[in-house]
Order: sequence, then C-alpha cells, then structure tokens
Amino acid sequence: MKEYFKNVSKISYEGPESKNPYSFKYYNPDEIIGNKSMREHLRFAMSYWHTLTADGTDQFGIGTMIRSWNNENDKMDLAKARMEAAFEFMDKLDLDYFCFHDRDIAPEGKDLTETDSNLDEIVTICKDLMKKNNKKLLWGTANLFSNPRFVHGAGTTCNVDVFAYAAGQLKKAIDITKELGGENYVFWGGREGYETLLNTDMEFELDNFARLLHMAVDYAKEIGFKGQFLIEPKPKEPTKHQYDFDVAAVLAFLRKYELDKYFKINIEANHATLAGHTFQHEIQTARINNALGSLDANQGDPNLGWDTDQFPTNIYDTTLAMYEVLKNGGIAPGGLNFDAKVRRASFEPEDLFLAYIAGMDTFAKGLRVAYKLLEDGPIENFIKEKYSSFNSKIGKDIIEGKIGFNELEKYALENTSIENKSGRQEMLESIVNQYILEDK
Amino acid sequence: MKEYFKNVSKISYEGPESKNPYSFKYYNPDEIIGNKSMREHLRFAMSYWHTLTADGTDQFGIGTMIRSWNNENDKMDLAKARMEAAFEFMDKLDLDYFCFHDRDIAPEGKDLTETDSNLDEIVTICKDLMKKNNKKLLWGTANLFSNPRFVHGAGTTCNVDVFAYAAGQLKKAIDITKELGGENYVFWGGREGYETLLNTDMEFELDNFARLLHMAVDYAKEIGFKGQFLIEPKPKEPTKHQYDFDVAAVLAFLRKYELDKYFKINIEANHATLAGHTFQHEIQTARINNALGSLDANQGDPNLGWDTDQFPTNIYDTTLAMYEVLKNGGIAPGGLNFDAKVRRASFEPEDLFLAYIAGMDTFAKGLRVAYKLLEDGPIENFIKEKYSSFNSKIGKDIIEGKIGFNELEKYALENTSIENKSGRQEMLESIVNQYILEDK
Amino acid sequence: MKEYFKNVSKISYEGPESKNPYSFKYYNPDEIIGNKSMREHLRFAMSYWHTLTADGTDQFGIGTMIRSWNNENDKMDLAKARMEAAFEFMDKLDLDYFCFHDRDIAPEGKDLTETDSNLDEIVTICKDLMKKNNKKLLWGTANLFSNPRFVHGAGTTCNVDVFAYAAGQLKKAIDITKELGGENYVFWGGREGYETLLNTDMEFELDNFARLLHMAVDYAKEIGFKGQFLIEPKPKEPTKHQYDFDVAAVLAFLRKYELDKYFKINIEANHATLAGHTFQHEIQTARINNALGSLDANQGDPNLGWDTDQFPTNIYDTTLAMYEVLKNGGIAPGGLNFDAKVRRASFEPEDLFLAYIAGMDTFAKGLRVAYKLLEDGPIENFIKEKYSSFNSKIGKDIIEGKIGFNELEKYALENTSIENKSGRQEMLESIVNQYILEDK
Amino acid sequence: MKEYFKNVSKISYEGPESKNPYSFKYYNPDEIIGNKSMREHLRFAMSYWHTLTADGTDQFGIGTMIRSWNNENDKMDLAKARMEAAFEFMDKLDLDYFCFHDRDIAPEGKDLTETDSNLDEIVTICKDLMKKNNKKLLWGTANLFSNPRFVHGAGTTCNVDVFAYAAGQLKKAIDITKELGGENYVFWGGREGYETLLNTDMEFELDNFARLLHMAVDYAKEIGFKGQFLIEPKPKEPTKHQYDFDVAAVLAFLRKYELDKYFKINIEANHATLAGHTFQHEIQTARINNALGSLDANQGDPNLGWDTDQFPTNIYDTTLAMYEVLKNGGIAPGGLNFDAKVRRASFEPEDLFLAYIAGMDTFAKGLRVAYKLLEDGPIENFIKEKYSSFNSKIGKDIIEGKIGFNELEKYALENTSIENKSGRQEMLESIVNQYILEDK
Repeated sequence: MKEYFKNVSKISYEGPESKNPYSFKYYNPDEIIGNKSMREHLRFAMSYWHTLTADGTDQFGIGTMIRSWNNENDKMDLAKARMEAAFEFMDKLDLDYFCFHDRDIAPEGKDLTETDSNLDEIVTICKDLMKKNNKKLLWGTANLFSNPRFVHGAGTTCNVDVFAYAAGQLKKAIDITKELGGENYVFWGGREGYETLLNTDMEFELDNFARLLHMAVDYAKEIGFKGQFLIEPKPKEPTKHQYDFDVAAVLAFLRKYELDKYFKINIEANHATLAGHTFQHEIQTARINNALGSLDANQGDPNLGWDTDQFPTNIYDTTLAMYEVLKNGGIAPGGLNFDAKVRRASFEPEDLFLAYIAGMDTFAKGLRVAYKLLEDGPIENFIKEKYSSFNSKIGKDIIEGKIGFNELEKYALENTSIENKSGRQEMLESIVNQYILEDK
Repeated sequence: MKEYFKNVSKISYEGPESKNPYSFKYYNPDEIIGNKSMREHLRFAMSYWHTLTADGTDQFGIGTMIRSWNNENDKMDLAKARMEAAFEFMDKLDLDYFCFHDRDIAPEGKDLTETDSNLDEIVTICKDLMKKNNKKLLWGTANLFSNPRFVHGAGTTCNVDVFAYAAGQLKKAIDITKELGGENYVFWGGREGYETLLNTDMEFELDNFARLLHMAVDYAKEIGFKGQFLIEPKPKEPTKHQYDFDVAAVLAFLRKYELDKYFKINIEANHATLAGHTFQHEIQTARINNALGSLDANQGDPNLGWDTDQFPTNIYDTTLAMYEVLKNGGIAPGGLNFDAKVRRASFEPEDLFLAYIAGMDTFAKGLRVAYKLLEDGPIENFIKEKYSSFNSKIGKDIIEGKIGFNELEKYALENTSIENKSGRQEMLESIVNQYILEDK
Repeated sequence: MKEYFKNVSKISYEGPESKNPYSFKYYNPDEIIGNKSMREHLRFAMSYWHTLTADGTDQFGIGTMIRSWNNENDKMDLAKARMEAAFEFMDKLDLDYFCFHDRDIAPEGKDLTETDSNLDEIVTICKDLMKKNNKKLLWGTANLFSNPRFVHGAGTTCNVDVFAYAAGQLKKAIDITKELGGENYVFWGGREGYETLLNTDMEFELDNFARLLHMAVDYAKEIGFKGQFLIEPKPKEPTKHQYDFDVAAVLAFLRKYELDKYFKINIEANHATLAGHTFQHEIQTARINNALGSLDANQGDPNLGWDTDQFPTNIYDTTLAMYEVLKNGGIAPGGLNFDAKVRRASFEPEDLFLAYIAGMDTFAKGLRVAYKLLEDGPIENFIKEKYSSFNSKIGKDIIEGKIGFNELEKYALENTSIENKSGRQEMLESIVNQYILEDK
Repeated sequence: MKEYFKNVSKISYEGPESKNPYSFKYYNPDEIIGNKSMREHLRFAMSYWHTLTADGTDQFGIGTMIRSWNNENDKMDLAKARMEAAFEFMDKLDLDYFCFHDRDIAPEGKDLTETDSNLDEIVTICKDLMKKNNKKLLWGTANLFSNPRFVHGAGTTCNVDVFAYAAGQLKKAIDITKELGGENYVFWGGREGYETLLNTDMEFELDNFARLLHMAVDYAKEIGFKGQFLIEPKPKEPTKHQYDFDVAAVLAFLRKYELDKYFKINIEANHATLAGHTFQHEIQTARINNALGSLDANQGDPNLGWDTDQFPTNIYDTTLAMYEVLKNGGIAPGGLNFDAKVRRASFEPEDLFLAYIAGMDTFAKGLRVAYKLLEDGPIENFIKEKYSSFNSKIGKDIIEGKIGFNELEKYALENTSIENKSGRQEMLESIVNQYILEDK
C-alpha cells in the first residue's frame, strides 16, 4: 500500500519535556486516569472532511493544501486514495475513531443511483480498512448542504423534490453508518434555517423538519440501527439563522415535536461561541437535560464572527469541557471529534499531524486537570456549601414542594436579616490556574 | 393638582406634514385600521421606571435628568409626586396603559412589613388616579434584582432566606397587580443567571426557578388573578448568562417543567438583538409556538453590546414587528410597553415627550405599513407560492404523514431533475421599502 | 452580438407608484437635484466580480448561479462572453461606470507572461466596448489575495518572490487602469494582515507594505497616471486582522509613512460595520480628514460577523451616506460601486437586475432625502446653535489659541454655574424619519 | 492607625504548591528574572477607584460591597479613611504603586474652589502616607466624565463653560500628580465621543480636544512636570463612539495634530477586546510605533459587549502581554495598573485580596513564561527564518529602497516558480502551551 505521509512516522508519547514536535507531550493513550485509560475517556475521532477533503479554500482564496493524493484525476481513484491515506493517518496518530459525511468519502454521480453506487464501492473498501486497522466509526452523517439543490434547505426546503432527495440521501447515510458499525449518527442542519423572514414560512419549515426526523427514527427502528441520534446546534453560517441555534433551541424543538427521547446533542465548541455561549455552558446545559451526546473538539476566535474551526489549543476550554464530561460519567457512545481544520497557511501535510497533536495534547492535559479538580473537589465542595441552606428546614420544604407563597411570605416578613456570602469568583479562577499549571 | 410638565401641553395628531415637534405625525389614536382603532391595535404603555424613576445614571456618570419632582426629600412624598406626574404624562400623551415594578412606585422600608405598607399606600393613590384618568395597568412586576440581597439571584439564589423573600415580594406584587386590574404580570429574571459556572449549580437553580413559578401559578389560582403570566427573555446583563436567554430557551424551560400552558412571553427588541436575533425573529418564534404575550418596544444599537433601551425609531423594525402582531390577530391582552429611556444627554423633561412621540409615531407608521402589506399580500403570496409543491401529490402525503424514507427514496431515485426557484430576497426588500416610503 | 439577459429589457424610471419590479421607482438618472443630475451625484458603478464572476459559492456550498455564459468551456471564451454580458448589463441598467480586479476579467495563464497577455487581449476588447457603449472605468485593482502564492500576504508577505510577483502584477494593473481611463485605482489588502502574531513580524510587514505603496506612487508618476489612489479598509476576513482595519488605522499608517498626500480612502459599508462603526461614521471620519475618496455601496447584517456584501436597501444608511457625500461637495472622482452580491438563493439572472434596482433606488431616495435635509437645515442648524458658545468671548479665544490652562482655570473658578442643553437625539431621529417618509 | 482589613495579614510568596489562598504562588517580588526583579519588571499598581471607591453598583442593582470605611458619614472623613485603607492594602499586598482620579480621593465641594481645597487636604495626607509606606504614584488623572456637567464631553464639549471647567480641573490634576511625584499622567476620554452623529460636529470636537492637549503639554512645560503623558484608548462605553477608539485611532489623531512626540499610550486589555483586537495586538501596535506607555491589567469576557474590568486570570493573555513588554525593553516609566474590579458577588473585603493575588500571580507567571520563551527563542527564531529571503539579493534591494516596479516586474516575469512555507500556527500554539505548562 502506498504511503501518503512519508515524512511523518508513528507519533508516540514522549512526555511534557520532549522537544520533538512530532510527539505527544500529554496524550499517553493507555495511561489510566481514574477507572479508564485516556483513550477510553477521550474517544478521539478524525474528521474526514477537514483532514482528507479540505483544501484550504476560503471566501477570498483558492486551495493551498499540499496533499499527496491530489494527483489522482479520476474522482473514484481520488476517493480511494483518500480512504487509504485516512487510515494511514489514523494509524500514525493512534486515533481510534473517525467521522464522515457521505459526500466526503465518495463523489456524487450523474444521479442518485450512481451516487449511491459510488458510495457502496467506497464503503466496502472502508469496511475492510477498518477491520485491518482496528478503527471504528464514531458517527456518520449526510451532507445536505453543499449541493445547490439544498439552496433553500433540505428538511426545511420549500421544494418537495428536494425534500424527497434529502430523505433518500439520509436513508442511505443511515444504511452505511449501520453497515460500518457507526456508534452515532449526526444531523447538522447546514441549510435548515433562513436567509430572510421575508420569504420564509418558519412554522411550516420546522414542522417539516420534525417530520423528517420522525421518519429517520422510524427507519432506524425498521432496520435495527442502534446508534445514537444526535442533533448538532449552530446559530448561523451558512444561513443567517439556523433553527438548531444552540442547545436550548434544540431542546425546545425536540420537546415540542416529542422527539426528545430519540435525540441527544453533539456540541461543537466554535458553534457554542458563535451563539454567545461558552463551550462549557453548552455542554452543561445538555448534561443537566440528559442530552449530552458527543463533542466536536475545536475552537473559534473570540474576535471573529464566523466558524474558524481551529484546532483546540486553549487549556481552559479543554479542562472545563472534560470537567463536564467527567461529571456526565463519560462521553460514550459519543466521543471527541476534531471538527477542526489546519489554517490555510498551514498547508504542508506535516501540519495535519502537528495540529492533531496540539489538539489531542490539549484535551489530554485538560482531562488530567479536570480529573484532579474533581478528585480534590475545591470547586464541587465550594458549590455544595454555597447551596447548603436548602438542605434543611424551610429550604428542604421548598425542595420537597411542601410550601407555597403564603408560608414563604410569612417567613420573609418575620426574618428581618438576610446575609449572603461571597461568590469568590476570583479565588476559584485562581484555583483553576493552579491546577492547570501544577498538574504533573 | 400640581402640574409637573408645565412646558408641554396635550399632544395631538397633526399629520405627517406638521413641523411641530410636540405633535403626532402618524399616531392618530382613533383612526380605524382594518377592524380596530390604532389605539386598540397598539395598546401603548408607559414604563414607570424609565419615565419617572430613571435619572440618567450610567456606569461612568451620575444622574443628569431634570425632573420637577426631584425637590421632594421625603421618599414617600417623592413617590406620590411621581405618581401624579405619571398620570399627567399619560394624559398629555394619550397613553392608555402603564407598567411598573413594585419598587418603582414605592420605596423600600426598614423591613418587608414596612415596604409592603409603603406599597399599599401608593397603590391606593394609584388606583384612584387610574379611575379619574381612565388609565389601565398593562402589567405589574416585582423588582427582584436591584437590592443587594438578590446578588446571587432571587428564584435562583443559593440562599433560602432570599428565596423566601423573593416569594413574599412576588406574592405581594401579584396582589397589587390584581388590585389595580393588571391585564398581565411579567417575570424578568434580572439576576436569574450566573456570573461564572465555577460557583454555580445550574441544574439546582433552574429546578428552583421552576418551583417558584409553579408557586406563582398556584397562588394566582388561589386568589383568582386572571391576568396573563409572561416571561421576559434576555440573554445577558446584568449577569454573564441569564437563563431566559431568548424565546427558544424560555420555551425549552417551560416545556421541561410543564409550565408552558401557564406562561406566554414578553419580547423586548433590544433583548432580541443582544441574543443575536432580530426583533421579528423572536416575535415570530413566539407566535408560531402560541406564546406571543406582549412586547417591550425599544431598540438597541447594533454596534453596542449592552442594553441601550433606546426609543424605537427604526421604521423597518416597527413595521416587521407589527406585521407579526397582525398575523397573530393582535397583541391583546398584551400591549406595547415603551421599555425605553431617553438618552443621558436628553435630560430635559421635554425630551420625555419628544421621545415617546418618536416611538409612538414610528410604531403607528409601522402598523399602517404592515397592515397595507398584509392587505395587498405581496409577501404572503410570494411565500404561499414558494411552498406550493407541498399542497398536492407526494407533498401532501408528506404533510399528512402517509409516507416515509422508503417511498421518498424511491421517488428520489426516479426523479432525475430537480429545479429550484429564486428566493428573490432583494426584490422583497425593495417591495418593503416601497410600502414604507409610499404609504399615505 | 449575443444577448445574455434575454428576459430583461432596459430598465426605466417609472416613479414610486409603479408595481413593475423591473423599473426604477426613485432613480431618475437625469433629474436635477440641486446643481447636478442624480447620475452625476451618484456615479453608480457595477462591480465586475460580484456581477459577472461570482457563482454563489459559500463556505458550505458550491455555486448556484444560473448564468448564460456558463456554457463556455474555454477560459478566454468565457472571459470574452462575460465582458460582453457586462456591457449589456450596464446598458440595460443605465450604469455609467464599472470596477474590476485584473483577475476578474481575464484568467491566469501558465506564468505571469501568459497572464499578462491574456489580460491585454481582454483589455483591448473592453476598451472597444467602453467606447461603443459610452461606459467608464471608475477604478481598477489587482487581485493579490485569491491565488495560493499570496497565502502569507502580497505587500506584507515573508517571501521576496511573492513580493516581486505582487509588484509586477500591481504595475500591470495600474497600466491597464490607465489604458482604460480609470479615474481611480484601489488597494484592498485582502491578505495584508495576519492569522496569528505568533508567526508574524508586524513591523517588518507594515514597513514593506509602505515600500510597495511608495513604489506605486513613483510608478504612477513615471507613467503619468492621474487617477486617484485609494486604500480600502477592512478589519478582518479573510485574515484574522487586516492592517487597513478602518479609516483611522489607514490614516495612522499613511501619516507614519508620509503617504497621506497620495492616497484617499474607499469606504465600504459592510467593512465599516465589521469594524464596529457605522457607514456614516467612517465616511465622516474620512471627510473631515480630507481623505474621502470613493464608496463601496453595500450593507451587512448586524447579526452576522462576516462580510455579507448585501445590496444596500436600508434607507437610513443610504440617506446618511449621501448626507456626508453632499457635505463633502460630492464624491467625484470617486463613485458608488455596488460591491454587493445577490444572495446565494437569488440565483436567477433576473435577480441581478432586481438587486441593482433595489440598491440604486435606495441610494437615489437617500440622495433626495439628504439633499432636502441639508436644504432645510434642521440638523445643521441644531448643531450650529449647539456649539455657538465657542463663537465669541472666551470661546473664541480658545479657538484662536490665545489662552491656556491658567486663564481657563481662573474663568472656571469664578464661573459657579454651568448650564447644559439637551442633545435632543430622539427629536432629531424623529425629524430624519419624517424627511424619509414625507419626501416626494 | 485603624486597621481596615483585619482578617487579612501581609501576603507572602509561598510558591506554586501552597494551598493557602492568601499567598502568592507565582509572584515572588524580589526574585530576579533576567536582569531585573519581578517587582521591577511588573511595576504593579493599585487602582484607587476600583479598590477603594467602587461599591458594586451595576446598571440593574445598587452597591453590595462590604467595606469597613462605609460607616463614615462625613465625605472628607470617608476620603481620609479610604486613603488610610489604601496604604494598608498596598502594604499587605506589597504593591509599590497606585493610580487615581482626582475625584476618587476627594469629594467635590460646592464649587471648584472648595473642590480644589478638598483635594489639597487629601493630597497632603497622601504624600505623608506615601513617604511613610514607601509607595509611589504610577499615574494620576482627572475624572472628566462622571459629573453631569460633562454630559456632552469635556475637551469635546459644545459648552465653553464646561471646556473651561475641564481645563481648570485638568490643570489641578497635573499639579497634584507632580506634587506626589507621579511618573505618568493619563488622559482617558470617557465622554470624548458621541452618542449620535445627528447632533455632533466631530471635526470641531476633535480640533478642540487637540487644543486641550496642547494646553496640557504647554502647562507641563511651564511647571516642569516631567511625567509621561498617556492617552488611554477605548472604543465605546459610556458613549456610543469614543474618539480614542484604539491604538491606531490615537496614533492617527496624535500625528494629525502634531502631538505624537508628547504622548504615549496606556493600553487596557478589556478596551482592546471591546475594539475587536487582542491585548497583544494593541501592545505590539503601540510598541512598533514607539508609543507603548503603560498597561491597564484586566480582562473582559469575550461573550459580553461591555467593559467588565475583571481581574486578569488568563495565562495566555498575561504571557503574551509580558512577551511584548520584554521585547519593548520593559514598561517603565509605565507599569501594570490593575484597572480591575471584584465581581459584584465578590463583595467581602477578603475578595479584594484574593482578586489582586489572582491577577498578580497570573502576570508573574506570564512574565516567567515570556522570559523563557524569549530566552529559548522558539518563536523569534521561527519568525527570523520566515522572513529571511529579505536579507539578501533582491530582498535586500527592496528593503534598501534600491528598486521599483520595473525591476520587480522583470524579476517576476523571469521567476516562474514560487514556493511558500507553512506558517505552522498550530505547532507554535502547542509550543506556547508547553512553555506555560512546563515552566517551573
């Protein structure tokens, strides 16, 4: 088999002192943290699109990426080369999982029949490579946004032919995800939103979107697909407003259409920040609503208003994300998918490795710090004490639903002194810093 | 009775050509638009706090406002003077409604007992003035955010004494709202959120907030208060994150805690924009979820990241807001409350009138344009046509839930040509411009 | 000659009552406003790239635009077809000017020599069409951002070969701009900025950028190019930070490197808002620094953080922009270039016309309103009166530089009462509304 | 002398392992880093206003802060108590410097004469305490924004009486800064901007502002004040637009009015981010323009659009800030002023200490990491290599101004292959992480 990344060997853990850029400083896959290996905690996945397909195009410039498979002229040959390169890449980085859109792995044909046939051919190859390399599919998904046919949406299109096409494509994507043993299936509604309310019937579109999702639930039952269904929120881009704006919007939607028992949420860091939230906020919101499904590990730039999908290198974000994951009892059957792309100026193949190492190390370190924080408990204990007045007496009565306004008013009228305690935000931030900086 | 605004007489409609700043150019209260007078459509309300209490303080400067009641030194005398001024103001502007927080109208006493007694005294005066002046209470609310006791929240506080106080204060606020015939009661959670997740148990806080609202529902039933309950979303400020972030977050919350049949939503324009939405988006989202309750009429500045609460003078925003209101069949029992404050540099009493005139005229014009747009139907007809493929054949089958993925895939495989039509956004924007500019 | 837009005839002025979408409602080219025709005031230009070249690609989807020249397979044939279509388009819309990047009009060849030759061939055709159709070139520019060679910048690149290439390309672009009688030449630094300071020597890059601009000045002198040189600010996108962030950043740069007497500024509305300013602010800042050169007429979406380049349909923005232009004594030799693209969903050729009509009408109406506002003077008179205390006595002494801190302290110590007057913002906004709505 | 912070003793360095919240983990004042002690590198200053005067008021709530001096009823007694508390605070935290506004330290009287007299009385006390405690004044400034008289600006007011008052107040503030040996004097234009262009003559206001600054320069010469003059940029808040928007805007202004040789810039982190920049960007921009004067050490919240003035606890920001400071050869005569306030919910006096410790430790650690990064040079060497093609041949000719467009075009036409190298952003971010996490 051809070697696609000749300049890079298998990446190993060399520890925090290593000066070798092609080594892990913090990610030591089989080291046990608590009751699981780092590998099991983190469940890292390669994103097929950003790693194999993306070429560095942006709104003002064409592709820059140097990729050894670019000399393939035939679309199917290119697809096969990429698939081989993908497994070499996962192998060299010791990544256990990958994620893909249907159109990442195989090209569209002249019609849906040919497109499906292309897909089947590649899926067969992929399945074989998965077995040989002991790799797993974290999730599959359908690209229902790139093709011009989806210009007005897929599940929310105004055109019944497009809706039917989307349903057919989605069905096939679930089929192949099942075929490859995918542990999850993701719905990201890249065109499920609007550009202007002046030409939009939002109610109709949302009703239709719910119809499509119910069909997907029914179909999964029909074929016995057991993977977890996930909605991925994003507030905007490409559309002006996307219906799955943030975790709260998704919960409101799922509850309205009685879909909440069938779907959990795949949260992307950069989508969280575009919605005006922190990554931790979105993860915690999903967690306390029993809806945390999986994570897209990346980061945005707080000064930029679009989805930059950078590799996650901010230790605060990864620490607090892993804090929530640990409180959730882990992220499985979800995982941490690097929905991240190398910068347009990081166009050499080596940059792909350097970027994944950066992301994996930052999350590995975040896991270590979060675990230690939870073990020692400086934050949890502070919070427990802070709310302790609800553990007894009238506090307990409130929690247990025994009293109402009349009793509380009486209590308040009699209680003439109220004393609060400091929230100690600065001290807590300082403690987090100390845990980050002193973890060994 | 003392006259508080001596330099301003009653404001009358003089029509669009008038050069008199102290006249309405577009608001002609008793003119019939469709089946109702402008007065009935718009249900304008004065916000007590911004109009009578606000002094122009900002984060970097102390009060600037020149108000004739400022020479009252005794707090209760000041409260009475303001109440008289309020009715003179409503009378001169022909405003039918007002809205208030409990602490706007009467000062806190040394304890809750005295505070309630202060409130009772002012409520009696207010009721009398309402009768004399034929004015109505659109909504009442409790200020559960200004006092230091609410530093960690009211319904979401960690301190049971504060929770009890909040419940007692809330009960009283509902009592007086009922006493004054209030048509709605509003919950705005100014401190119901967090500053940092490091010291916050979000799940606990939200559970408690739901408990408080259930108590309010029970209490309203107990005393026979028939007014509409409204939640008012705001994403941030004063807190870093407020739980009632936007309409979607409120719907998710209400549905989770089975509160959705008891609460509708009061939408503020500036809160919508701080959440990354347009005012129209938030109104339409509420409307299609049968949750549109009332509106806070103001506007923000798109270049500023805080709640500027400016008087609404943007004709696009008011037109599209009224478009939604008309599609909703009106806003009653809600109304349009000017939750807007004159700029710190508009410190003369006359500015209060000029600002209300600006806001009332802009909404009146917006109503006229929206009504004409709906009558003529250029937008509605475009939309109807756009989605028409779902009215028959397979489209109809989808809507009626007769088919699933298998049928749709078959259809898609056979249907090899898909044709979309343009969304015509620019043309539609041009049409809106023409309606705004050519309405007579 | 082939007709490229068969479904659309020449657009005429039909007045504000017309229901014909393919007519001007407000733009009446030869109507005199003050001392000039609307045509002369507005100096509208077609942007070649958005109109002829753009295909509706966005970050998540491929092109949607239906264009009759798309069946040309040969790159030079395509370039010729587009050029013919461009003149048909300008003719049908009665646009007098156009603007282009070198790479919009002709394709790159295998090397710079062939590229230049391609360019020469098209320029000859263009010049001929200009003469036949009586059209003029508002400005030319070089695309120094799309090609991968510019990944690290053009004038600010770290690679001397790229710098040399950029200089060569720029020289040629000035040559052809001169050849076509271009009245201006624009520098937009799409890659002149950085992605991360971690790999950037900002000082070196800015010094080099200044060197490039000085070379351009010298070269223009050498060849006798008399067109106006313009810098176009943009704060970010594609890069994280662009050196020409806003008008102020450009002025600081030009002054540092003694380039200010050679360059004026081309201000784009959407770039202004991305920088946190209003369009009017940027225009006024340039105007009072004697640096207002030309305008890119478009608009952004205040809820979106990227350059949406929408057609300008907001009457407030166009009115206030034209207000500044009139105060500047006009925009010539600059003009109003529609650096605006039809939405991805407005993919029919007709949408190009509808969008230009929308933009031209909104600016024409803005011109009318601004002219009336200046004629009547409600704003100018208010401002004049507001600052009148500086016209005499100590105010005059300050302006004339006759006094300093000692005299002013003495005056302040003696003057124990200070009285300010209201800024009347709400009244002024109301007046603007009235002028917009009542202009006939 | 009374003890104001009885619960907190002198804070000592206990090292990174200490669990004592009231200790420094990283700030070891007299440890030598390179050629200077940490104390000399960092030049930390206490901000008088946030520490002694602020009470936790926000736009929606009144003060929460528990301060032992709050029982003083007389304004001058309160001022004296605060001054004593200030020196106790600086002593316990081992802070060498402080900064103040005139109105922070002494109350306004009935007129400017009495106000100046109040100020003199407190300044005498302050001077004495400085001597006794060996503390120094980093900078003084005048509060020209809180009082209603400055509603339309101070140096940019429309009212000559206000301009004179501002000049008088400014003169006095320079006098007392000199009296106290202040090493800098800061101009922050809290009201030097506009709310709406509709009532503003921006050109007049900027001309006048320059006049005021020239008077200040003249006056400093007259009295022999040798302190450094500093402008502090902020883009907005309290006004909609502030003229000193960012470093670039200040440079443009200073150069226009020939003030650049008299003023440097005081950069605040949170003001940088409100302007859409990183802190490092603003510092570097000032540095390479020879205009870096001093720093306001705080941080904002990327999800919030107002000035939160949080204590700086982000290790990335402090590392990169210190990196620039070291490259600048140090920050003296400027320093690091904690223009930061404890959160409203951190209302106990202990929080002031915990917050300063958090900030001082984070900057101390940032200094250590930055120093190590510069010593080892992984970033500097990467950059040096990246631009190396400009060190010889045609690159050198460009830098030395020997060639122009003609030579460069010739070179470009002949040079048919251009090769760029990766920018390696992800690797560089990873290296910064490693330096932060592994510094000992």
